[in-house]
Parts: sequence; structure tokens; C-alpha cells
Amino acid sequence: MKRALGVCYYPEQWDEAVWESDATRMADLGLTWVRIGEFAWSRMEPQPGHYDWTWLDRAIEILGSKGLKVVLGTPTATPPRWMISKHPDMLAVDDKGQTRGFGSRRHYDFSHPGYRGECAKIVTELAMRYGKNPHVAAWQTDNEYACHKTVLSYSAAARAGFQTWLAQKYQSVDALNRAWGNVFWSMEYSGFEEVGLPNLTVTEANPAHVMAFRRFASDEVVSFNKLQVDILRRHSAAPIAHNYMGQVTDFDHFAVGADLDIASWDAYPIGFLSDRGFATPEHKRHFLRQGDPDFQAFHHDLYRAVGRGRWWIMEQQPGPVNWAPWNPDPLPGMARLWAWEAFAHGAEAVCYFRWRQAPFAQEAMHAGLLRPDSEAAPAHDEVAEVARELAAMPEVQQTQAQVALVFDYASDWAWTTQPQGRDFSYFRLAFDMYRGLRRLGLDVDILPPDTGDLSAYKLVLAPGVATMSDNLLKALAGFEGTSLIGPRANSKTAEFAIPVPLPPNLPGLDAKVMRVESFPPDVTVPLTQGGAFKHWREKLDGVATETTQDGFPAVIKGGKLHYLCGWPDDTAADRILAGLCAAEGLATQIMPEGLRRRRAGDVTFLINYNAEPVTHNGVTVQGCDVNWSGK
Amino acid sequence: MKRALGVCYYPEQWDEAVWESDATRMADLGLTWVRIGEFAWSRMEPQPGHYDWTWLDRAIEILGSKGLKVVLGTPTATPPRWMISKHPDMLAVDDKGQTRGFGSRRHYDFSHPGYRGECAKIVTELAMRYGKNPHVAAWQTDNEYACHKTVLSYSAAARAGFQTWLAQKYQSVDALNRAWGNVFWSMEYSGFEEVGLPNLTVTEANPAHVMAFRRFASDEVVSFNKLQVDILRRHSAAPIAHNYMGQVTDFDHFAVGADLDIASWDAYPIGFLSDRGFATPEHKRHFLRQGDPDFQAFHHDLYRAVGRGRWWIMEQQPGPVNWAPWNPDPLPGMARLWAWEAFAHGAEAVCYFRWRQAPFAQEAMHAGLLRPDSEAAPAHDEVAEVARELAAMPEVQQTQAQVALVFDYASDWAWTTQPQGRDFSYFRLAFDMYRGLRRLGLDVDILPPDTGDLSAYKLVLAPGVATMSDNLLKALAGFEGTSLIGPRANSKTAEFAIPVPLPPNLPGLDAKVMRVESFPPDVTVPLTQGGAFKHWREKLDGVATETTQDGFPAVIKGGKLHYLCGWPDDTAADRILAGLCAAEGLATQIMPEGLRRRRAGDVTFLINYNAEPVTHNGVTVQGCDVNWSGK
Amino acid sequence: MKRALGVCYYPEQWDEAVWESDATRMADLGLTWVRIGEFAWSRMEPQPGHYDWTWLDRAIEILGSKGLKVVLGTPTATPPRWMISKHPDMLAVDDKGQTRGFGSRRHYDFSHPGYRGECAKIVTELAMRYGKNPHVAAWQTDNEYACHKTVLSYSAAARAGFQTWLAQKYQSVDALNRAWGNVFWSMEYSGFEEVGLPNLTVTEANPAHVMAFRRFASDEVVSFNKLQVDILRRHSAAPIAHNYMGQVTDFDHFAVGADLDIASWDAYPIGFLSDRGFATPEHKRHFLRQGDPDFQAFHHDLYRAVGRGRWWIMEQQPGPVNWAPWNPDPLPGMARLWAWEAFAHGAEAVCYFRWRQAPFAQEAMHAGLLRPDSEAAPAHDEVAEVARELAAMPEVQQTQAQVALVFDYASDWAWTTQPQGRDFSYFRLAFDMYRGLRRLGLDVDILPPDTGDLSAYKLVLAPGVATMSDNLLKALAGFEGTSLIGPRANSKTAEFAIPVPLPPNLPGLDAKVMRVESFPPDVTVPLTQGGAFKHWREKLDGVATETTQDGFPAVIKGGKLHYLCGWPDDTAADRILAGLCAAEGLATQIMPEGLRRRRAGDVTFLINYNAEPVTHNGVTVQGCDVNWSGK
Repeated sequence: MKRALGVCYYPEQWDEAVWESDATRMADLGLTWVRIGEFAWSRMEPQPGHYDWTWLDRAIEILGSKGLKVVLGTPTATPPRWMISKHPDMLAVDDKGQTRGFGSRRHYDFSHPGYRGECAKIVTELAMRYGKNPHVAAWQTDNEYACHKTVLSYSAAARAGFQTWLAQKYQSVDALNRAWGNVFWSMEYSGFEEVGLPNLTVTEANPAHVMAFRRFASDEVVSFNKLQVDILRRHSAAPIAHNYMGQVTDFDHFAVGADLDIASWDAYPIGFLSDRGFATPEHKRHFLRQGDPDFQAFHHDLYRAVGRGRWWIMEQQPGPVNWAPWNPDPLPGMARLWAWEAFAHGAEAVCYFRWRQAPFAQEAMHAGLLRPDSEAAPAHDEVAEVARELAAMPEVQQTQAQVALVFDYASDWAWTTQPQGRDFSYFRLAFDMYRGLRRLGLDVDILPPDTGDLSAYKLVLAPGVATMSDNLLKALAGFEGTSLIGPRANSKTAEFAIPVPLPPNLPGLDAKVMRVESFPPDVTVPLTQGGAFKHWREKLDGVATETTQDGFPAVIKGGKLHYLCGWPDDTAADRILAGLCAAEGLATQIMPEGLRRRRAGDVTFLINYNAEPVTHNGVTVQGCDVNWSGK
Repeated sequence: MKRALGVCYYPEQWDEAVWESDATRMADLGLTWVRIGEFAWSRMEPQPGHYDWTWLDRAIEILGSKGLKVVLGTPTATPPRWMISKHPDMLAVDDKGQTRGFGSRRHYDFSHPGYRGECAKIVTELAMRYGKNPHVAAWQTDNEYACHKTVLSYSAAARAGFQTWLAQKYQSVDALNRAWGNVFWSMEYSGFEEVGLPNLTVTEANPAHVMAFRRFASDEVVSFNKLQVDILRRHSAAPIAHNYMGQVTDFDHFAVGADLDIASWDAYPIGFLSDRGFATPEHKRHFLRQGDPDFQAFHHDLYRAVGRGRWWIMEQQPGPVNWAPWNPDPLPGMARLWAWEAFAHGAEAVCYFRWRQAPFAQEAMHAGLLRPDSEAAPAHDEVAEVARELAAMPEVQQTQAQVALVFDYASDWAWTTQPQGRDFSYFRLAFDMYRGLRRLGLDVDILPPDTGDLSAYKLVLAPGVATMSDNLLKALAGFEGTSLIGPRANSKTAEFAIPVPLPPNLPGLDAKVMRVESFPPDVTVPLTQGGAFKHWREKLDGVATETTQDGFPAVIKGGKLHYLCGWPDDTAADRILAGLCAAEGLATQIMPEGLRRRRAGDVTFLINYNAEPVTHNGVTVQGCDVNWSGK
Repeated sequence: MKRALGVCYYPEQWDEAVWESDATRMADLGLTWVRIGEFAWSRMEPQPGHYDWTWLDRAIEILGSKGLKVVLGTPTATPPRWMISKHPDMLAVDDKGQTRGFGSRRHYDFSHPGYRGECAKIVTELAMRYGKNPHVAAWQTDNEYACHKTVLSYSAAARAGFQTWLAQKYQSVDALNRAWGNVFWSMEYSGFEEVGLPNLTVTEANPAHVMAFRRFASDEVVSFNKLQVDILRRHSAAPIAHNYMGQVTDFDHFAVGADLDIASWDAYPIGFLSDRGFATPEHKRHFLRQGDPDFQAFHHDLYRAVGRGRWWIMEQQPGPVNWAPWNPDPLPGMARLWAWEAFAHGAEAVCYFRWRQAPFAQEAMHAGLLRPDSEAAPAHDEVAEVARELAAMPEVQQTQAQVALVFDYASDWAWTTQPQGRDFSYFRLAFDMYRGLRRLGLDVDILPPDTGDLSAYKLVLAPGVATMSDNLLKALAGFEGTSLIGPRANSKTAEFAIPVPLPPNLPGLDAKVMRVESFPPDVTVPLTQGGAFKHWREKLDGVATETTQDGFPAVIKGGKLHYLCGWPDDTAADRILAGLCAAEGLATQIMPEGLRRRRAGDVTFLINYNAEPVTHNGVTVQGCDVNWSGK
């Protein structure tokens, strides 16, 4: 498939007089796609039930007339002010019981029936008007579900929805009481209407209660999205996407993605390095103006799985953003590098956010491809270069990775609910293992937790998956390759209890977790063969392939299934992973810091996140540059 | 008295089929006591006014038939869900004005009359049914008063109760205005109904107002507890205990204890080291899997005073807990060491929490003597060893300590209300002085603040007692031993004003505190003879026995009463305390780090909290081991 | 003008029996002024509409009879308890939506019409009774506006006031929508009654919305103050002051000051160093008991501007305070040094807070000139020394500074609203530049942001002024001296948008800010000639007089107007400022740490904040001492 470039555009924010020259400049720059509409509800429906489509008709016509293909967004992330007057209780409530008000975005509760009705109406109107429009070539539902912590709401609407969801699931409240162990601390209910939301309790709520609420809340996002998708499909054949955010785990992206045609994500490498992640100060300093060398790749591989192969970047950082703790300027070359890295991982399109920097409102300090005075900003010319390179390059192909990592959103809820050690993070654990594979130069596929077929892989990792699905357990039982499961894997039942017999209960592995412990960051458990466990370790009684210095198994083996008994540091991860790869005949090589490799068909990309050149296997890659074989 | 072991057990959480084998195994392990019932209200009274005692009858019978003695808990820490429907305003309110909801435990307001009525009813039912039961050999009221910061509630019920309490105390609102100095900032009231709770003020509330509220709140705990005690005594002759928590100071334990027969506390050494206290990172690392070497002893000595000689450990940590920031696994030997340390300090019983680890609900990650699969967890065999040793050892006797430390809960309220330096903590100051005495190898008694007789002691310390009682002042006046009072002692009137004449106003001491200062942790005030004051110092005008390097008295003397003019660091504390001991003919010797000594009758216990062996005075104590003379 | 000393006194807090001796001792100490009354509303109007002036009559008479001049405060910072019963909705609401209750001070909402009416009544009564009293020689309105974050309230009263203010300003809601860019995120309003306050939004509110609210809130303080001033002037010819707090920027002091005769501020050097500011731990340690060597001077110069030449210290720290994180005791000499520093900067009066330390209520731990037992505290004798020195010295004269710094309160709101880097602080930036000038030994005038005449100066600095006024731009256009503008200067329109053409749009300077970036404190942008930018840098396209090491301009020049492209560290600031001074023929000399110079007429003061002596240009100044030529 041919890769393409695009941009996000807000015609409603500019004088109509500039639309035509904007469209012309976009086309001249080599862009294919333009995403519009997702925040324009107040212009589409200025008063309840009164629609104004004329401006949008004209905008789409002008863009389309220059050859641009439109991604049209449903505007449901920004209900207008009149909506709040009409549905005062549609606002979400935070975990402190405070209503989250109008005045920014995402001010709605996924569980509010009235708001869902309004969304159905506006999406229907939009779909009917533009469903057959030749320029509208794709749809986006809403915008960045979960952003600003908007999945969990503690409102009356959420409570009512949760009670209904529980009644459906458990049928009887006695079943719920038994499932959650509510006899503990006399927490038993005599009816579903007695079940509250698990916030504002005196001390921690029952983790089974919290997990049920997390599952309910994720389901609400799925059904909210599906409501829109079903309407759009009725009126349009164009593919439908949603733009997910980086390191957002509050809902199950695989479940939302199952209803969509394309996954896309919003990639802000420098903002994320400042705002998210777990990097050391040295690491943050080193990659301050480039971003983390594995963070984008992880999400590329994750969203390739969420999109079942089809994925985009819907918003690509073009310069400093406005929302991170600090907002440095990307080094020259990074706007191009990020795009090429995405294409190397299989992206169909990379759209920059945004065309022109808005001089007003919340994102006035967020750079665009144009400055507020419409002159080209630095990224503009890098995009032109990518467009030229794309045109000159044969189509990017895909490679089947030989290594896979299982990623499970519910496990992030599980270990957030019950970290057992203050700094335990499922995302971090999974990302650490992913980084370890990338440090060895490997291509990685990310797999959903209900994967039932592992036959394409030689090595499969499943760190920290709280409850392993029957599908996955069956696949592991029949897997001919090597697997590395754990730590903390399969350690909970579906109702968040400790299983008896004790974990991990994995096929072919005769072992039990006798005890677990967490410890602070200044403590480790050294391994006999080098490296150490950090944060977390488990004491198992199986037969060890290697041990900790205090005499417990570090890795346990049953056939080719291995259980990892703690959270390895880099040294331990490198050694253990390289060993497993070697046994499977997978060649590995420790990559230099900041240099990463990705194969796509016959092409091998070398991507250098460092500011300085790096030479690897005789090839020198300039700082902030990407090389590919045959270039 | 013969010492005994016990365990906490929750028959309602397990299939009845296992009760008998559980009881048999307990007895075989050498346990004497089993505590049950304290969280089972929803099973005792499943619907309002409908009781179900049959299961509890059977459980007690089975336990008793194996020779176990039951401690039966009143279930008032966990009112069932129906209670909240019946008394919606019985929930406590936090200092931000937020109601603290159902869904965990301790969800009640001590001041709510309706809830008090419900407690009286269930306790009456319980006492009538089991008051004469031969297997019920002790009672526990409620569970861990104050845990989860539940003493202070800012509810309507608390406000009404506070106003009544104030009216009783002051009789006229003018008296209250004068007592608190309400003319300051025009805070005068014209009626008791105008007095609110001291939260949510624009800047700090009047400290006299806060202190009155703290005293009221403590009194509410006392009367809540007494309500239950009075009922139990009407129906049963068995002794009554409450299980206090470590480093909980929000109510006056001496006042609650005055109504009880036995004090007990819940000892979680490793959880406390992670969660509480003021240890350096090095100290925390060194004792990560053992606990602080003085923290338990301090509480043993404190609760021996609260129980007027009779005290237990009602819950003893057996393995990792679930609630601390990090939850490491105790080193082998610690479950035994902790028990022996308690016996050495005079405990009548040490009960482990809990029999079998629950695989569900809030404490699923909290270890027990059995694993969730009913196999023995590591502590199980250490308990067996203690049982064997106890059987083989003559009864542990008591020694009269020659050194005492006055501990005053109200002073913790005082200096929390008005720290005057961000890190000033009364508890820490008292614990520092206690640790100093223990570092010198001394046995210590802790005394309540209204102690009227010091004649048993050679040395008495009273650091930071905000307002010294008439009893204590009289006792000091007639004391023939040496005393060390201060810093910050007797510096407030009963109404939290600065006394005139200025403090400390101690018998036989001609001195005035001219000025105080606090300073950050990176500053100290060095003393001429070595060591320094940290956090806090006072400038007095008396005659000094030693001075600070900047020329002020460090210690002032009047007869054998000494006033300490600042918070000493370890070096200063060792020197000053050793000097006072020497003058009284008390032998001291600096103990090695982590090794502590306790005398009980003719027996001297050496308790080694280090992981490694320590040799002291020619005796080698293994790591995590306890030695006793004659062993 | 002759300088004078004074004190703050609370006759209502003491037995009338001591008033006379207090007054006598004040006069004997050499005091001229005594401020009273500002917290005594509950004694002036004990019940609604029932006034009691007799005690105040007597107090003023006694003070006046000893020759003391009274500053009489309006008591509106502490409305009595009955006021809350009468106007329950007069309480302010914090940004979390929580009402801020009675029980301390400043518990009122500036926008509440009912409370304004009550203030008008009590001020009228006070002014009528004492407007012609011969002893009442000055007035103070309220007390420390903004203290305890009391300017911004999110109450219904504030919302109503804000809507009216917006309607006045914008006339049509469409104008408001356009001005704020509300099309962004569909935030458009259809009526002013739809506009809420910018708190509790899901993510950040529109910064234009926030800035409008900040301007409104500042205007409310101005009109609240003016209400009182207008009444006082009707009945009295005495000058009127307000006592501002240090580093409080939540309202425009220049605007409030325009209605007053005298500016005064409350100077707590040691409290401020602990509580405010941005000092390193080393700096805080070095000046722990002295205060920051530039912090007071900055405020002296600022309030000289706010008072258009007339300014006082209304409250001078005399010993430890009670409200800072830590509260050390000032070194001997500091109570005198601070007074002389104020006089050197032109203060008319320095009043110590307070006469006698109150043994009760919130400030019991705040030192006074007397101890609670009425004996002299250490500062007492230092005040006596200042009084003797003042009597012996010729009148202090003023010097016209040759260097000025523009300070703009609205810019602090701007960069608090949109810091764009977590640690960006306008106050800190301005203070850094001020400190740089002082480090060069210069006298500095501070100028309001609408200054229209710079002709008195050779060098003018305007760092970070978000929106430069037409007056200032015109003054710069005609300025014959050297100016240094930026960073982040003139970068916003009056509606908080980025201007097009791009900033800085300064007269005679051909340059555009192409891009800005912020970065964390462990990163800097080194300059070619030494030093570096920290926190913030801008990339401009003008012609550079010096550059950064990564090749962008560091300083840009157009005529004698210079634009500074980043936030300089000390090394860069010293070099750049010294160079600009040299070009204007201004002699500079790097002052030793902690030693500062101030010229007043023919007299040069040398002020040594160090504890140790410092020798400079052959003159030795003792630690904590102040020298002046001709002494």
C-alpha cells in the first residue's frame, strides 16, 4: 500500500478567504489527507436542532477540489454550551465527587442516555449529509477517548449504568456478593440498587468492586463508539477510525478497535517524554528535543494490532506543544524522522497536527506546519522532504515479526487497582520488556490478550497479564516456540481473587507462587548470573534455570515455557532475552543507545534518535536521521 | 503469668466444612487464643433487627471443643449496608467536607446518636448470647479505633456534639471567647450554636478552637467505647480489650484504656517501617525485611502502660502485608523474633493475623499463617517453634524499669495543631528520646501524663509535654531522682495559651523561655560539648550545665531537674542521657546498631534486628534471632 | 522629610489597665506612629447596627496623650460572626468549589453587594466618629488584600459580577466569542449569562477566559478599596494607606494605589525567605536568620512606585514569625538593619508588628517588641537604637535612580495562566533581573507598565511584560537611553492572543519571534560569550549582538533598544547588563554576596546581610550591620 501524508485543519477557525490558498498550499506540499470537523459542533448546530452545514459544504468542496481527501470527524468531544443547559446532569463527576464543568473539552459522561441521544442525532445528520460526499474518504469518531482522564465518572448516570451492568452480569446480588467476597468487612448487598461507585470510601474499596467498575467503564466507551459507528455505516462506505492517545489505558482499545476499520493515534514524542513515561533525568535530558526512542515504536506496534493491520498517525507533533511540563523545540530532522519511523512500522498515513498555529484559545502555544502569520514553520519543509522521499520510494512492505508481546489493558487496571508496591506499573513493565526486545534489534508484534494462535512466532512474552484468557492458555499449550511469562502473570481469577491452586497455573509448568514481595527503588534482588530484579519478585517452588543470589528461582522452565519470577533490570533482561532468542535461532545484537532498527519487507530502516551520528555495523546514521537500505 | 499464642480467624469467610480441621490445626500448632467476629455484622444481623447466631454458635463450639479460647469482637467497625440506608447521616465527613462512604470499613461517625443506638443493640444481643459461653474468654470492642483517620469527623453530628460539649465545659459563650482569645481577628461568638468546626477556614483556625475539637473528638471515642464496655460487663465476666494501632495518636489511649481490662495492639513491623516513622533511606534499607528495632518496643512499653500492666499483641504480622508503600517479605526468623520481643516486654499473648490468607477482597495480598491453598506459609513453622520454646521456658517475669518516659497524646494534638516548624512532630521527639534510652541498653517504662508518683524511677524524661498536669508537677517537685524535661515542655496553658509567667514553670527551676526557633533539616545548632540541636531550640535565661556554640544554654538545671533547651541529635542525646544515668548510678552501654536488650525478671533478652550476627559483650546473636540468658 | 518609627497595637486584646503604660513605653522608645483597629469589628459593632466606640475613644485618647499619632484601620478584613448569619453567601469559594468559612480572617467575597454595604456602613461610622480626631493622623483600609489567596473567588456573587463586567466590556456576546476565540472547541456562548467562571473545567480553560477573570477580580479589589477611600475622604483630611503583602500579585497594586495617598507593605524578611521566593538551599541556609538581601529592596522600590513616592513599612518583622515553614530567630542587628534599609530606600515610616506578643490565638508564636510577659524582647532595644540614630542623623534624602525596571502585575497573571514551562514565573524573572542590577551596585526605580516618560533614566529593563501599553511603546520610541526588553515581551494582544505580525513589535526593532521553547531546570542553552539561558528561550530572526551556542540570536538590537531572547543566568545577566551600563557611562561593580549598596541624596548606605563582616572598597561592614557615609 502506498503511504500518505496529511494534516489537521479547522476551517471554522479562519476567515473563509484563506481556505482556498490553504488548500492549495496543502496540495502543493504533497499532502493527501485533511482531517476536519471534530471540534465544530457549535458551528454545525448553533442552537438545539438548528443545523448549519453550508460552511462545511464549502470547506469540503474547496479541499476536495484541490485533490485532498477529507477525514470527517464527529464533533461529540465538544458539546456546545446549550447542551449543558438542556442536559445539566450530562457532565462527568470526578473521583472526589466534583462535577467537571463546561469550558474546555470532553465535558460529558459516557453513561448519560440523554447525551447519547444527542450524539446519535448529530452523527445521523452528519452521516446523511456527507455519507456519499466524494471527498469524504474516511471518518473519525469523537476525539481522543479517555484524554483528560474522562473514562471514569462517578456521576448518578454512571452509577445507574453500573448497577444495570452488574445486574446483567451477575443476575443475582448473592452471586455478586460471593464473586467479590463481600462477606469480608460486612460489605454484602441485598440488592443491586445498593451498590455504589468505588470512590470516596474510608479506606480502599474492594478491588473486585473497582475492577468491575473499570470493566463497566471500558464497556461504556465501546458502546458509545459503536453507537456512532453503526450510524455512519448506515450512510457511508468510507472507513472509520478513532484517534487514540499515547499511553492511555483506561479503556480496552482492542474492544473499541473491533468496531472500527482503522486505528490511529496521536503521536507527540517530545510531549510524552516530558509528561509520561518513567525515564531517568539523564534519559530525559539526552532525548529532550527528540522523544524516547522506543515510545513511538511501541505505540505503532500496539495500534497496528488494535487496527488489525490498518493504522495511521492522525496527529503528528510538528514543533513545540503547549501541554507538557516543559515544551522544547524538536531538533531539525525529527518531524521527518517520526514520519518515517511510522511508515517503517506500517502506518498508512501520517497527519500532522495542525496546519496553522492558532493564535488564540487553549492551544495558542501549540506549533503547526504554519506559523500564526501563515509563514512556513520549520516542520513544513521537513514534511515536503518526506513527501518527495515517499514519491521516490517503492511502496513500504510489511514484515512478519518473529517475536511478540501480549498487551492487556485490563492488566493495567488490575495493577493500578492493586499495585502492592507504590511504583508498580503494568504499562512500565510491558514497556520495559518491549524496550528489551528492541535493544536486541528485534521487530516486535503486539498481541491482544485473547490471542489464540501464536504459530507465527518463535518467541512470545506475556509479562504481568493478570488473568490469562482460555484462548491464550490454549495457544501456549500448543505453542512450538519459546515463551516467557510473568512476573505476576495469571495471578488473578476473572473476579480478581487469587486462584487456588496457586498461580501461575501455566501449561506444562509445575510451579506455584508461594509468596510475592515489592520493594522500593533503592533495593534490588541480585541474580546469580548478573543483573537483578527490581520493584517486584516472586518466590516459586519450581525448578529453576537460574536463581537469585538469595536462593530462589529467577526463571522456571517447563518445556519451552518459561516463567520469569521478577521484574528484570536491563542487564538481566538483555541476558535472559538474548538467551531465549539464541535457543530459537533468532539473531540478536545490542543496539547502540538511541539507535533502533525496523525491517519492512526487504528494507531495513535505521532510526537515530540521538542528536549525534551513530555508526552501527559499518553504517553511519546522522543525528536525528533515518537511513534505509537501498536509499 | 504464662504467655500464650493465638490467631485471628474469620469462620464466616470459609466453608463450614473446613472449620473443624482449621481448629484442630490451630490447637496442634500450640495456639491458645482465637479472635473472631469483629467484622461479621452482616452475618450476625443480615437485615435490621433480624439476627442469625447459629453459624457463630457452631463456630465457637468447634473452636472451643479443640481447647481454644475465643476472643469475641463486637462488629461495630463494619456496619452493614442496610445501616446506611437507615441512617444516611451516620457517615463521617472529612476535613474537605466530603462524606466518607460505604464500601470498606470504619464508615461511621463516633458522634452519631442513631449509630450509637445500633451499636448498643448489637453489642447487647452479642453479650446476652455469648456472655456466659465457656469458650468466650475475652472480648474485643470494635477494631482499631482511629485507623484510616476516622477520629476527626466534620459532620453535622460532630458539630452538634461539639457544641454540646463546649456548652458543658464553658457554661457561657463569653467564657469560651475569653478562653480562646476570640477577640483576636473578631472571632467572638454570641452563642454556642454559632461555633463551627475548625476546618475550611480561610487561613488557620484558632489553635485553641482546634485543640478543643481534638479533645472533644477523643472524648467521643472514649464514650463510644465505654458504651460497649458497660453492656459487655453487664453480661460477662471475661476481660475486655481493644486492639489499638501503631503510631495512632488521634485519641487518648490512656482514657480509653481506663475502661478496659487489657490493652492490645496490632504490630506490623515491616509495614510500619515503610509507612510510618521518620527513618533515613539507609535505615529503611537496612531493616527493610525486619522492621525498626525500637518501634515495636516503644509500643510494647506504651501499651503496657495503657493496659496498666496487662497487654497483648492482638494482630502480629506473619509475612508481607498489603497496605504499606512497599511490602517486602520478612526475613526468616522475624515472625519468631517479634513474638519473643513482645513476651520480653511483658505481653500476655501474641496473636497472629491471620490464620489463612484470604484470596479475595481488600486484604487478598496480606499473608497469613496458611496460604490461600491452606498449606503452611513460612511463619507457620516459626510459630510452632515459639510454642515449643514457650512450653520449655519458665514463665516470663517482669522487671521494674529504672527509667521512665512520659507520653502524652494531647501533646501530639498540640504540636500537630501548632508545629511552628514544618517537620516538628511530638511523636518523633518522644520516640527519639526513647530510642536514645534504648541505645544505652536501658529498660524503659512509659508513663501517662497525669502520673502522680515517680518514686520507682531513677530517671524520668518528659520531652514536649505541652501542658504538664498538676499531678505530674507535684510528682516532679517531690521526685528524688533525676528528671530531664523539655524541649517545648509545659509551654501551654490548658487553653493553649502561652503561660505568664513564661514557661517552663517547673519546680525548683529558675528559668524562662525567652524565645523559640525552628529551622529546616539542613541546619543544626551545635553544642559546645558535641552533638547539636536539630529542628527546634529555645533560648532560656537560666544557669546552664552546658551551652550551644552560639552562647545559649543547652541544658539548665535546678536541683536534679534538668531542662533540655532543644531537640538533640543522637550524639547529643547519647552524651546527655549517659551523663544523667551515670549521676544516678545507672550503668549504660551503647548497644550495637540493631541489637537491643530487654530484661524480664532474671532473664536478659538480646534481640538482633540485623540480618547478620552481632557479638556484644562476648555473646553472639545470630541475624534475626533472639537470645536469652539461660536459654 | 523626617523618617519615623511606629508599632502595631491591639488595645482590644489587653486589659485597659495596661494601655497607659504601654503608651508611655512606646513614646519612651522613640516611636511616633501606632496602628490600631484593623481587626476589631466585633468590638466596634458587637451586634448588627449596635456600635460601641467608647473603648476606642479611650484608647485613642490615651495613645494621643502620650504624643503618639494613630493610624486607624478599617476593620473589614475580619467581619464578625453575626455577619455570616446575616449574609450567608458572602463567603468566598475556592477553585475546588469549596466555601471558605468563618473562623480566621479575610472570609469575604469582594463581589458580594451585601457585604460591600456593610463595609460602607462601618467605614462611615468610623470616619464620622474619628475623621476629625486630632490623634488620628492616617488611615489604613482593610488589611493585606489578597493574603491567603483571597482575590479569586468562584462564588455565585463573583459569577454574577463577572457576567456584568463582561457585558460592560464586550457589549455583545459575539464580540466576546470573537475576542476569546471561542470557536475553538465549540466554546461559544449565546448570552453573557452562560459564561461561567474558569474553574473545574475538564482540562485547562481558555486562557483568554482566565485572563478576563483575573482582570475582573483585580478590578473588584480596586473598587472595594475605593468605596472605603471615598467615604474616608468625605470625613477626614488624613492620608490613607493600605498595607500590601510581599510577593502578592493577584491584583494590580498600581491601580489600588492610585486611589490612596501612601503605599505601605508588611515586611517579614525571614518568613519570606522560608516561604516564598526561589532560593537554592545554600542561599536559604546562608541567609536563614537574615532574609534575602534583595527581596526587601525590591519591594521597597516597588511600593515607592505604587505610592508615587510616599511609602511606609506598616508591619516590620521583629523576631520569629509563626507562619513560615520554619521560623528562625533573626540574628542580632537585623531588626535595626531592616529599618535602615527601608529608610535608605525612602520609607517615611517603619512600624513594627507588633507591640506585645499575644499569648493566645493564631499568632501566639509571632514575636513582638515585648514578650507576652511585657518584658522587652530583643528587637525592642534595636528599635531604641534606630530611634537614637534617626534623631542624630540629618533627614534622609532621595536620589533619582538612573536605572529602571518595568513591573506589571497583569504579566504575572498572564504567565501564571500560561506558563508554557512548569517553572516559568514572571515574578521570578523580574526579580532575577532586579537582582542582577543590584549585584552591579545600582540603584533601581520600578516603573508601572503604563509609564509614558523614561527620560529620567539611562537604562530601562522590561522583562516579560506580556502586553506592552501604548504609553510604554511610545516612551520607548522616544527614549534616548538604552533599553533591554524581553524575553517574552509584548507577545500577547490585550485579548491574550499571539499578535500578527508576530512579536515583539518594538519600535525600531526589525525582528520576529519565530518559535519559543521551555526546558527543565537541568538544561540550559549556553551563550557564545559565556553564561546561558535557563527555563526559556526564543528563536528570533533579527540581527544579533550576541548568539547562543546553537546558533540563534541571544540579544538583538535596533538602535539602543535591545531584545533579550531568553532568561539569562547570573553570569549572562552580569555580562549583558554591565555591557549596557558601560555603553551609557554608568559605573558598575560586582558587589560581594550579601552586601548591597543604596544611595540616598549624598549618603551611601552599605547593608550587610551576611552574618560575617565584609570589606568592600576598603570599607568594612560588620555582619548584620549597615554603614553609611558620614556616620
